[in-house]
Amino acid sequence: MPAEPATVTGTDQRPGSQSALRRRNSQRIIRALMTSGRLTQAELARQTGLSTATVSNIVKAMVDGGLILTSPTTSSGRRALSVTLNGRGAVAVGVDFGRRHVNVVLVSLDHRVLAEDGVELPLGHQAEEGIEAAAQLVRRLLVDTGADAGSLLGLGAGIPGPIDHRTGKVIHGAILPEWVGIDLLGRLREAFGIPIFIDNDANLGALAQVSWGPYQNVRNLVFLKLGSGIGAGLILNGAPFYGNIGVTGEIGHATVADHGLICRCGNRGCLETVASTSTMIDLLSRGRSEPVSTEDIVRIALEGDPAALRVIDDAGLAVGRALANVCNLVNPEVIVLGGSLTGLDAILLEPVRRGLLRHAVPAVGESTELAMSGLSNRAEALGAATLVLQQAELPSL
Amino acid sequence: MPAEPATVTGTDQRPGSQSALRRRNSQRIIRALMTSGRLTQAELARQTGLSTATVSNIVKAMVDGGLILTSPTTSSGRRALSVTLNGRGAVAVGVDFGRRHVNVVLVSLDHRVLAEDGVELPLGHQAEEGIEAAAQLVRRLLVDTGADAGSLLGLGAGIPGPIDHRTGKVIHGAILPEWVGIDLLGRLREAFGIPIFIDNDANLGALAQVSWGPYQNVRNLVFLKLGSGIGAGLILNGAPFYGNIGVTGEIGHATVADHGLICRCGNRGCLETVASTSTMIDLLSRGRSEPVSTEDIVRIALEGDPAALRVIDDAGLAVGRALANVCNLVNPEVIVLGGSLTGLDAILLEPVRRGLLRHAVPAVGESTELAMSGLSNRAEALGAATLVLQQAELPSL
Repeated sequence: MPAEPATVTGTDQRPGSQSALRRRNSQRIIRALMTSGRLTQAELARQTGLSTATVSNIVKAMVDGGLILTSPTTSSGRRALSVTLNGRGAVAVGVDFGRRHVNVVLVSLDHRVLAEDGVELPLGHQAEEGIEAAAQLVRRLLVDTGADAGSLLGLGAGIPGPIDHRTGKVIHGAILPEWVGIDLLGRLREAFGIPIFIDNDANLGALAQVSWGPYQNVRNLVFLKLGSGIGAGLILNGAPFYGNIGVTGEIGHATVADHGLICRCGNRGCLETVASTSTMIDLLSRGRSEPVSTEDIVRIALEGDPAALRVIDDAGLAVGRALANVCNLVNPEVIVLGGSLTGLDAILLEPVRRGLLRHAVPAVGESTELAMSGLSNRAEALGAATLVLQQAELPSL
Repeated sequence: MPAEPATVTGTDQRPGSQSALRRRNSQRIIRALMTSGRLTQAELARQTGLSTATVSNIVKAMVDGGLILTSPTTSSGRRALSVTLNGRGAVAVGVDFGRRHVNVVLVSLDHRVLAEDGVELPLGHQAEEGIEAAAQLVRRLLVDTGADAGSLLGLGAGIPGPIDHRTGKVIHGAILPEWVGIDLLGRLREAFGIPIFIDNDANLGALAQVSWGPYQNVRNLVFLKLGSGIGAGLILNGAPFYGNIGVTGEIGHATVADHGLICRCGNRGCLETVASTSTMIDLLSRGRSEPVSTEDIVRIALEGDPAALRVIDDAGLAVGRALANVCNLVNPEVIVLGGSLTGLDAILLEPVRRGLLRHAVPAVGESTELAMSGLSNRAEALGAATLVLQQAELPSL
């Protein structure tokens, strides 16, 4: 499932050569263990597509090298060898930068969450503030877990805005306008001094579903993040999909109201102008002395407030209709809803499903599973850590 | 670019083994030659990602086996070895089944069109009639080219309807309702007695653009077929994309008019109900003694008929708007328009581009190339032949 690292250099590492073959097979095994944690040799063979003999040979060499650990276990009642990476204390960092928060997770090579925490940030904060807050969190969590800063493999960061792969910069229209156009990769490298990997937050939410969530075997999945912005992350044929310039899943900018409100992207009547939490807050704050918060919306809807229920139903229908277009186009197996409204459960899922089934080609709508994310607000940071596990230089290969 | 054949059986062909490696490398070289025709060894190395040493070794073995032919040439002023498959008379058949036609092409292993022809069929014809017409065409073209029926590698067929990969059947809502639910693969196998590969016609149009058209190096391409139905074929990361059940690119069924006409898919106000050639024919036939044909529409629009120009402009805008959603989601590098209206050129392209730019996220719309297909009505049949070149059992491996 994971994408191979982008660069393979040197003649002996050309894809057709013997040494490249052995290296690729070893990497497959390590990536599988990073992604899934503990596996038997038989499971490793299945996941990597390698023969059990090849797996067994490579595992033996890696045990000798101290790179992995094995222990006897049973599988379907038979004796088996359970394999896990010797984490050697190596740690991957995942950071989720939001409009009003930053969340951090530390994960180990053997696919365990070591520590996690987050802080709130003021609306409209500059990129520097977000980066500094993340750096403080990472330092504190390292101390808490007793890990060593030298053990950091790399840092993955999720950004709530599309990233143009031609320039590596957040493009105009991002939910964090203060972050547009800055050299984020450079700033993060400077602040942390370790390898940095960045991606759009919805893409990372999708990646988290197939690496930490219950969908490890799903090859085509859409993660829809519904918050003050609306964006989707796509897993197609088992890997995150980036298209031509890296800007994919922008369903928040489907036109749904011809003469609707002007959107931050420059167009008019986009889905975001009718179904984002910002729009819900606007609608439900009228006539109140204090504006409602996203948490308030969830609370009063669960209490049965008719205005909140109506606003959520309308938003859900609009989102479902946009998802129908997504299904008609890329026909995913599963759609997972994430963002700040997951606590609404059926109150939100039901109108989304109604909109989806009403507007999708019947055979497609009926065969698509729709579910609420079970990773709550950790999805993006976990996906960011997966970026590191999938793309960072592998230790001592 | 081509997908690997689906089945690899036997322990010695597990992806990690030596013999599997050599087999895969040989296949890469053959597939590259099938797809591109004649290549130098250096170009082969670039296209397959193999080292020049590996390419040279395999080419040598294949020359000894009589499978390929080499000849001296020059490349950038230097001496080089040009490699081509020894076609040995092997032929791939591509068939495009339409609502009122069937087109057939015969192509050789070394990527040349040997013969092509088509016949018109009555609207509402049964699958049997279409298959029999195709069989007659194939027999005649074989005689014309002096090829032997024993030399047929396989037959690819394009169907104007979505194919459910779970059952292999055309699903409800296809443009050929008479073909829904029949076991097409079985019928074609019976009629031709050679390996059969089928796909949706829009998918094959997309495949033709990257195998026979000018877009051989484009990794993300959308082919939009605009005719009595509207459907898209997707090339994502260099290969046709099929999603979960095989039904992708169904943008003709995006809802664009809430209280619009009932669509053959069972929904209401789909793009097809406002922008298909059937709708154009309905609109432009009112008040005429004879209904206009698609060819008439092209002709009178080129003559400047105001009603035709208005109908095409409205349809183009609606198609462009739907394509904006496609761009926002999968961010292709190129969109190619095909179907029965390609003769309209700028008259159709211009409103499509206007709709696309108006509704796409600006960075995405501006970076997407939009062009008319240069393969005219051969695209689908050529794509069907490519299916065979990519998926048929390779000769004497």
